Amino acid sequence: MADDALRAAFDELRGRLIEAGHLIPCGVDGVYGKSAEYERVWAGVGAAASRLAAPDGPVLCSFPPLLPRVTFDKVEYVRNFPHLSGPMFSFRGDDRAHAELIRRLDEGQPYADLLQQTDVAFTPACCYPVYSTLTKAVPPGGIVFEHHSYCFRHEPSPDPMRMQAFRMWENVRVATPDDVLDWRSTWLSRFAELFDRLGLDARTDIASDPFFGRAGRLMAQGQRAYQLKIEFLVPVFGESEPTACASVNYHLSHFGELFDIRTADGDAAHSACAAVGSDRCVVALFQRYGMETDTWPSSVRAVLWP
Amino acid sequence: MADDALRAAFDELRGRLIEAGHLIPCGVDGVYGKSAEYERVWAGVGAAASRLAAPDGPVLCSFPPLLPRVTFDKVEYVRNFPHLSGPMFSFRGDDRAHAELIRRLDEGQPYADLLQQTDVAFTPACCYPVYSTLTKAVPPGGIVFEHHSYCFRHEPSPDPMRMQAFRMWENVRVATPDDVLDWRSTWLSRFAELFDRLGLDARTDIASDPFFGRAGRLMAQGQRAYQLKIEFLVPVFGESEPTACASVNYHLSHFGELFDIRTADGDAAHSACAAVGSDRCVVALFQRYGMETDTWPSSVRAVLWP
Repeated sequence: MADDALRAAFDELRGRLIEAGHLIPCGVDGVYGKSAEYERVWAGVGAAASRLAAPDGPVLCSFPPLLPRVTFDKVEYVRNFPHLSGPMFSFRGDDRAHAELIRRLDEGQPYADLLQQTDVAFTPACCYPVYSTLTKAVPPGGIVFEHHSYCFRHEPSPDPMRMQAFRMWENVRVATPDDVLDWRSTWLSRFAELFDRLGLDARTDIASDPFFGRAGRLMAQGQRAYQLKIEFLVPVFGESEPTACASVNYHLSHFGELFDIRTADGDAAHSACAAVGSDRCVVALFQRYGMETDTWPSSVRAVLWP
Repeated sequence: MADDALRAAFDELRGRLIEAGHLIPCGVDGVYGKSAEYERVWAGVGAAASRLAAPDGPVLCSFPPLLPRVTFDKVEYVRNFPHLSGPMFSFRGDDRAHAELIRRLDEGQPYADLLQQTDVAFTPACCYPVYSTLTKAVPPGGIVFEHHSYCFRHEPSPDPMRMQAFRMWENVRVATPDDVLDWRSTWLSRFAELFDRLGLDARTDIASDPFFGRAGRLMAQGQRAYQLKIEFLVPVFGESEPTACASVNYHLSHFGELFDIRTADGDAAHSACAAVGSDRCVVALFQRYGMETDTWPSSVRAVLWP
């Protein structure tokens, strides 16, 4: 699709969501308040994913959307995705520096140089906080964690599917390579079933993360070559421009090595995560079935609110 | 209480919450994962507050924990509370700047000067996003909004009641001065009832916001003189060091003027908010009744999970 046509499609869908009150614009691309009905759909998407996960007996937990900088740096997020990262700054000055800050504000001047980087960043993906909390040895059979929370990526966009602050539902599996690969296969089937039941016409594709720059292109090639990331793509703006609404990611022993997480045999644990972009699913459902949820197909309503 | 004794009390409660698995330490003071049971208590606190609010018919909405910088600057947060603020930075450089970033990371050098301030900040209070979304005229009788989401304040602390990322339940009333003052009185009664039923021994006190520095002390004095902020204080660490777990705040026409929100008669609307520190309430409940919710008094359980 040409850029102009795609931009028009973004504006059309965003306009309908705003007119219906489901998205409340806040003055910046990709930051929206949501209606109670939007939130009810969102909760339904998460609950549907949780029911698929239930047989694994995941440990339910919740993390705030803040990642300690020690973890943020350890997972090399700012190295690999600096353009999407959200390190947090604050002010540590005295009364004199504060007077200068006020002068800048009064004159409408930049004040970034008066701020200092803090020990936290906005969490870019749900699974990062989990690894740092694991003890060195996972039990035989491994572990599954589930959580669902806000993430941040700095990519202001008029595309209502691409929010700066968005929610991700995730299950994270940490275990031996065989167990992790079996679990990944299970989730490929589960997500196919979920999107089928939601009528969202998803197809899968080998994908890569949006690594930055020249060095990043090599990393993305490696990720594709080993088929480490498989996305479920939904054609919200047409078949030629589908949007990833879920993904299954195999990390090999990357996080096991980084956080020194070991399986019973002493090897570095392998890990994978199954992630649903729950806000993207909500927008895709409104696009597919219209702004009034009581007119949605009963089969879809039964998945969201059984 | 002496500083040492208070610090010991923080460590004791935090230690018990961590040992019980309700708080999951992430490596930075004030940033914790939470157990499923913690989240169930948290949801119960929010639901109890929502039931008290129901007679007003609030508009339910949800905002992400990101505030556009245009609003952040307009409400003068960074001017008044720079030390607590959380402006977000990101990287907008090219491959060459990226190479320098990687060099700094490899050498463990600071890289803050390679980042730029973005158009967003971490939301410091639930009510700020609401005002910017209001149209210029509120209907006769005014409006009430309800939402419940993560907020951020940069105050790393060993006190488990004082998290950097915490959740706030809020109702916001925008109306004529008389309507707003009546509503404020109603919430003073409602919160007294809520804390009474939860057995949390709250008392009210005139309070002020933690304005920064010398200039801030004058603003805090004004806020106290007009009794604009009334807190519900719970003695989690003893009567001499109570912690605010809810507050009712009257803004006069401050936000009405700032955002040009008018009542039917054309005057700047007045506003107030009724806020519950829902994470603080959860920690206070665990401190009061112990780490096992099934041993909590049935009267308290009935408030949380009727």
